[in-house]
Amino acid sequence: MNQVFKEAQPSPNEILELFQDVREQTDRLVAPLTPEDMMLQSMEDASPAKWHLAHTTWFFEEFILKPHAPSYTSPDERFAFLFNSYYVQAGPRHARDKRGLVSRPGVDAVRAYRDHVEGSLADLIDSGAGDAETIVSLTELGCHHEMQHQELLVTDLLHGLSHNPLMPAYREPEPLAISEEVPLTFTKHDGGLFEIGHYGDGFAYDCEGPRHKTYVAPFQLADRPVSNRDWIAFIEDGGYSKQPLWLMEGWAVSQAEGWDAPLYWWQQDGAWWSYTLRGPQPVNLDAPVVHVSYYEADAFARWAGVRLASEVEWELAARDTVIEGNFMESAAFRPLPAGSLWGDVWEWTQSPFTPYPGFRPPEGALGEYNGKFMVNQMVLRGGSCATPKLQMRPTYRTFFYPHQRWQMLGLRLAKDADQ
Amino acid sequence: MNQVFKEAQPSPNEILELFQDVREQTDRLVAPLTPEDMMLQSMEDASPAKWHLAHTTWFFEEFILKPHAPSYTSPDERFAFLFNSYYVQAGPRHARDKRGLVSRPGVDAVRAYRDHVEGSLADLIDSGAGDAETIVSLTELGCHHEMQHQELLVTDLLHGLSHNPLMPAYREPEPLAISEEVPLTFTKHDGGLFEIGHYGDGFAYDCEGPRHKTYVAPFQLADRPVSNRDWIAFIEDGGYSKQPLWLMEGWAVSQAEGWDAPLYWWQQDGAWWSYTLRGPQPVNLDAPVVHVSYYEADAFARWAGVRLASEVEWELAARDTVIEGNFMESAAFRPLPAGSLWGDVWEWTQSPFTPYPGFRPPEGALGEYNGKFMVNQMVLRGGSCATPKLQMRPTYRTFFYPHQRWQMLGLRLAKDADQ
Amino acid sequence: MNQVFKEAQPSPNEILELFQDVREQTDRLVAPLTPEDMMLQSMEDASPAKWHLAHTTWFFEEFILKPHAPSYTSPDERFAFLFNSYYVQAGPRHARDKRGLVSRPGVDAVRAYRDHVEGSLADLIDSGAGDAETIVSLTELGCHHEMQHQELLVTDLLHGLSHNPLMPAYREPEPLAISEEVPLTFTKHDGGLFEIGHYGDGFAYDCEGPRHKTYVAPFQLADRPVSNRDWIAFIEDGGYSKQPLWLMEGWAVSQAEGWDAPLYWWQQDGAWWSYTLRGPQPVNLDAPVVHVSYYEADAFARWAGVRLASEVEWELAARDTVIEGNFMESAAFRPLPAGSLWGDVWEWTQSPFTPYPGFRPPEGALGEYNGKFMVNQMVLRGGSCATPKLQMRPTYRTFFYPHQRWQMLGLRLAKDADQ
Amino acid sequence: MNQVFKEAQPSPNEILELFQDVREQTDRLVAPLTPEDMMLQSMEDASPAKWHLAHTTWFFEEFILKPHAPSYTSPDERFAFLFNSYYVQAGPRHARDKRGLVSRPGVDAVRAYRDHVEGSLADLIDSGAGDAETIVSLTELGCHHEMQHQELLVTDLLHGLSHNPLMPAYREPEPLAISEEVPLTFTKHDGGLFEIGHYGDGFAYDCEGPRHKTYVAPFQLADRPVSNRDWIAFIEDGGYSKQPLWLMEGWAVSQAEGWDAPLYWWQQDGAWWSYTLRGPQPVNLDAPVVHVSYYEADAFARWAGVRLASEVEWELAARDTVIEGNFMESAAFRPLPAGSLWGDVWEWTQSPFTPYPGFRPPEGALGEYNGKFMVNQMVLRGGSCATPKLQMRPTYRTFFYPHQRWQMLGLRLAKDADQ
Repeated sequence: MNQVFKEAQPSPNEILELFQDVREQTDRLVAPLTPEDMMLQSMEDASPAKWHLAHTTWFFEEFILKPHAPSYTSPDERFAFLFNSYYVQAGPRHARDKRGLVSRPGVDAVRAYRDHVEGSLADLIDSGAGDAETIVSLTELGCHHEMQHQELLVTDLLHGLSHNPLMPAYREPEPLAISEEVPLTFTKHDGGLFEIGHYGDGFAYDCEGPRHKTYVAPFQLADRPVSNRDWIAFIEDGGYSKQPLWLMEGWAVSQAEGWDAPLYWWQQDGAWWSYTLRGPQPVNLDAPVVHVSYYEADAFARWAGVRLASEVEWELAARDTVIEGNFMESAAFRPLPAGSLWGDVWEWTQSPFTPYPGFRPPEGALGEYNGKFMVNQMVLRGGSCATPKLQMRPTYRTFFYPHQRWQMLGLRLAKDADQ
Repeated sequence: MNQVFKEAQPSPNEILELFQDVREQTDRLVAPLTPEDMMLQSMEDASPAKWHLAHTTWFFEEFILKPHAPSYTSPDERFAFLFNSYYVQAGPRHARDKRGLVSRPGVDAVRAYRDHVEGSLADLIDSGAGDAETIVSLTELGCHHEMQHQELLVTDLLHGLSHNPLMPAYREPEPLAISEEVPLTFTKHDGGLFEIGHYGDGFAYDCEGPRHKTYVAPFQLADRPVSNRDWIAFIEDGGYSKQPLWLMEGWAVSQAEGWDAPLYWWQQDGAWWSYTLRGPQPVNLDAPVVHVSYYEADAFARWAGVRLASEVEWELAARDTVIEGNFMESAAFRPLPAGSLWGDVWEWTQSPFTPYPGFRPPEGALGEYNGKFMVNQMVLRGGSCATPKLQMRPTYRTFFYPHQRWQMLGLRLAKDADQ
Repeated sequence: MNQVFKEAQPSPNEILELFQDVREQTDRLVAPLTPEDMMLQSMEDASPAKWHLAHTTWFFEEFILKPHAPSYTSPDERFAFLFNSYYVQAGPRHARDKRGLVSRPGVDAVRAYRDHVEGSLADLIDSGAGDAETIVSLTELGCHHEMQHQELLVTDLLHGLSHNPLMPAYREPEPLAISEEVPLTFTKHDGGLFEIGHYGDGFAYDCEGPRHKTYVAPFQLADRPVSNRDWIAFIEDGGYSKQPLWLMEGWAVSQAEGWDAPLYWWQQDGAWWSYTLRGPQPVNLDAPVVHVSYYEADAFARWAGVRLASEVEWELAARDTVIEGNFMESAAFRPLPAGSLWGDVWEWTQSPFTPYPGFRPPEGALGEYNGKFMVNQMVLRGGSCATPKLQMRPTYRTFFYPHQRWQMLGLRLAKDADQ
Repeated sequence: MNQVFKEAQPSPNEILELFQDVREQTDRLVAPLTPEDMMLQSMEDASPAKWHLAHTTWFFEEFILKPHAPSYTSPDERFAFLFNSYYVQAGPRHARDKRGLVSRPGVDAVRAYRDHVEGSLADLIDSGAGDAETIVSLTELGCHHEMQHQELLVTDLLHGLSHNPLMPAYREPEPLAISEEVPLTFTKHDGGLFEIGHYGDGFAYDCEGPRHKTYVAPFQLADRPVSNRDWIAFIEDGGYSKQPLWLMEGWAVSQAEGWDAPLYWWQQDGAWWSYTLRGPQPVNLDAPVVHVSYYEADAFARWAGVRLASEVEWELAARDTVIEGNFMESAAFRPLPAGSLWGDVWEWTQSPFTPYPGFRPPEGALGEYNGKFMVNQMVLRGGSCATPKLQMRPTYRTFFYPHQRWQMLGLRLAKDADQ
């Protein structure tokens, strides 16, 4: 299990507590949903909430209970086919774009499946039977895996609900926070030869290591993400129709899709609105812009005469910051003003998602965790208003295709030292 | 309202009884469904059960209550946008392929909508207020419209459920009826100059008239539909790979889709099975074949050295038969052996769906009922095991595109008098 | 060979003369073309001029020389693969949409192929060897086949050249004929029971028979095709944006393709222009409109409050007219004012292309001539300014898909007797 | 003009000689082609030979003659529209996928255009008029641009001809070189902090700089590219059907396209053959494999238990080698055995094409040269058997999409120092 690079391991009690916390948070996330809401699949990239509930459960069943709990029996052997996502070595899978067509098992049966697996796993850990170290390690991985799906669950849901002309709200609308415009300033960072990547004894994914040396030229990093106010200036300056600002491929996508604003935005009576998890809302000018693609982020940076940060620059800047976020109690489900590096929006970097020097994927099905995605995707750093706090750390690398917008994606500007 | 060609009209009491019967049958049809089942939309041609519930209700609201009941108020004005199907003149519509993404209103809200409209319409008819003749006529049309959707509801559902690897059953499986092979014989019919199309005082759609003269050459019509046993002979003789049997376009579709049997069929341990509304079932050899496209039906007829019937030939043969069917009590939801002209499968004819001489669509939104579909579709005659009995009559013309297979579509052979 | 329904046959001398005339006309048609022009294939429906040259030659080689001239040898056996169009029973074929990628054999080699086959066929006929009757009959068919391709050759070429921003002219531009507006009048025709379809001893295709009885209600037929002036009135009245005028499918195609005028039209300084075989030309107001789809023709007729003719109505009206056309000397390559039933534009009818009662395709590869196209296409009658005169007769049925526009397609209005 | 990073410039005489050499080489490349061959465009990625002839000419006209030769007149102002490739700031362009539909101007007119521009440019340089330094610099860029198109011209042609079932040869077939199997060995390289990127006074493209520091871990690089013999072992071991070897996206493309061997390969009588510029040839076992995508290269490396080189590793290894190649006299047009780093195949690296630290695109239309492609493409290093010698240097970066195969693309293996 080399996807976890650590020296110390949680105790069984600690892991059970984490497991319980994570599972309860998932329950809280789906509490406002009807059975019909949980069926929504609006595109192949997104999955129904019900599928997320089942898949995160399957992960514990497939990788822990089946190999490590000899007496475990599944409530339905066919769930392995239905709820595997892409782990080829874990067997055949149901077609990804047909997940929204699985009306049965229904929500109740999926909840029963969750209960069954939760009980069995708690028993297994409690019992101390088997290869306890591996079981704990895999349970920790499974909890982090479920936290990733918590964010997907709400962003997929937002995308699904956005096709409903009635524009329903997932959470109660809240009054718009009043905030002041914050000027865009940059902080200088010295370059040099650094070690980058995961270290120490916390949890990390395989792709966050190995820790390795890299040389970084001096650079400057913006002190806040790009705001909606900034973005509206770009729109009003014709940014979406100035081809020289765009990557050739970005221009093609933008034209084909008819982009003229971030996803979920529209104009109404001269003001910009957006559809959010709290229903239709006026665009909050001093909150970070969200739901923009890499292509748009890149064009914006060129328009601003600067560039996006590299992921190494970002990591260097983030190393010594304190992470504040919203795990458990405070999920905002929309970016708030005065964004820090954490918990507002994921920040597009200019770095493609590639293996670090020395990276070798783990053996077995879990080796498919990140390595097989290492082409054509771009790294984002930080964490959004839908990201569990435990998912945020300076070395965490998430990645999406440059055309994707349905996640909570924003950007932070950077520039060379001499600019 | 010239889509009804009749001299006598039902009384208010008769129409209320019909209305109640039809609405209750719809309730019976959805009784076995979960809220999740009612969300299924597996292709643009099909709609979710929940949408059918709402759309058939909207029809009464839009065309009767809004214009004829001055005090009527809709529970939600936005439903008109969500649940209009294609009536352009009735205003803008929600995208047809996105109906499966409307999780709200949920099933309960749709049931409340149904109750509200049912009560309002019953009150209106009871009161005798307004243009009673038009209200009765439109209510009759709305009932027939809802009966059409009853058949769509179950066939759309079958298609939706068929994407579930668990192959759930809509109705309890039933033991396979034992039956004997019936030889295929033909009955000769004299030709001559006939009057064809709707007459008398019963209900009919606009496209069933005007009644008009047509000359028919002598012909022979098969005494039963093509059976599964017949179809297996076609398969085993390589019918799906003999290009000369196929229309050029049929061959292209067949190859692109990889057809080698009717929709929902597969082979297992040497036997043919099919997925049905009663779950997976062995193919019933002497039942009519179902779920074949026009292209397949046409290729089969060529393979058999004969042809499909024209719709006029079919109508002449059907004129004097007694219609038996399954409305209300006995819906079989799968074709049974010894099929008659009625109630087993729709029968592809070789006739494109075109206007009868003198046809002119009614004015207004209801003029869009059939006329705008009069290109590229083929007429089917008869009625299937999912067709309400009141939808069956010698002049009824249903129509589908030649590549479509998800309806209960079969075929009957014909040939020239001298063959 | 039942695709020719006739009692008398041309003599060998007559057929040789026809053969020579037709082949020379093809040479004249390609005389203005460069080798590069002859490569153009702008869509799958169209073929390069070089391919037409080769394919029409292959037809004589495949169906006459190979079976009937024992000593015949092909200059290249592989041409049979390259230049078969769709005759499945004549063996495998090159992909239709890749014909424009066959740079070799070049034009010179194709001309040599033509010479070789022409000489061999002339020798065969001259010699009187073999089954002379069949040879003459097949040669006649091959000549008519080549005449069909002559029209395709120029319309395919127009489509190919239309993608060139330089808008080159195939033939010299000619000054616009001055003409006067002709009012649109209708002639009444009595209905009755008629015999329709090919008879007598002239050449006809399989689908023009068998001659058969049909009943026709009284009708009225317009005395001229719809003109460009008429069409502009339709445009100016918003015909392209009034959905109720359109078949549902026509509307979808029209919107997807962005149609707002006939193919090849554009507006410039307030006037309509079109791209023609004589280069860009102002639209000739009193010439028949051309390059409109069935969907447009149908919408126009509905806008005008009438309908298109059925093919039977057209045939009845055309029976006693004198055919004038442009074979050999006078090909106009653009519709001229004061159009008759012949030689200006093909006229869309409201009749789908279906088999006549009693139709059975001939045995063998030539049985594929027309029968396999009998679905989803609409019949056109008459003949265009690019149609050889010998292709025009009252019973001739050409057919295209309702969305196609690149042929010389126009329309004539009809209405019921009581309208 | 910061795309050339150099201290010294060629003299006018030197540049004229280069210009003449390059233009003559283009003439030699198209000498075997017919006008029909020069029309071939088999996909949007490829262009007709005639277009390459015209476009490389337009480049000199647009960027040198029009701004710097006041008396210059173009033979046809419309050529600027037809023959611009993607330089947005140089004005609108003809649709890229329609280049094969421009039959006029024909080959002769394009040759005349070349002559006209060549003469005008030679006169301009000779005259010493204007901003001579810029003119020389742009001419040098234009020559390198034309060399890039020389390689595209022959690979595009190969792709075009490959659709011809007759499999014509561009160059005479040559007997297969006899060669011996060379074992695959690796050379160790020390890591460290290096300067990478263009330096000195030779020509280079914008994306080859700025020269910058980078840290490289110790690594090992294979001493020869992967050979056809190696690749066949991969095929025979089932490499194309072992999903765990593949990037997720690579697997999807591979399945959708039905890949089971490099492009242009097929099996015949138990041996592998490939279609080449010298016609069909048996696969040369000890020559470098060619026409493989990045996805395939990556899967091969994983199968071999190693990885591809990074572009930095490659550049370090290549720095001190002597470049041999085939410019002018010796273009092989197929990879030969015993491949070096140069002149056989382009070698896929594991490095996405991204800007070097400090990169800023030049101002103006030429700023679009490379920067706008910096997403989703992978760097290849070296040079193929179709690459002009002057295009080969240790810092040269070419780039293609990971699914592309029609270029002369192969691979070289690498591994970590401790493997």
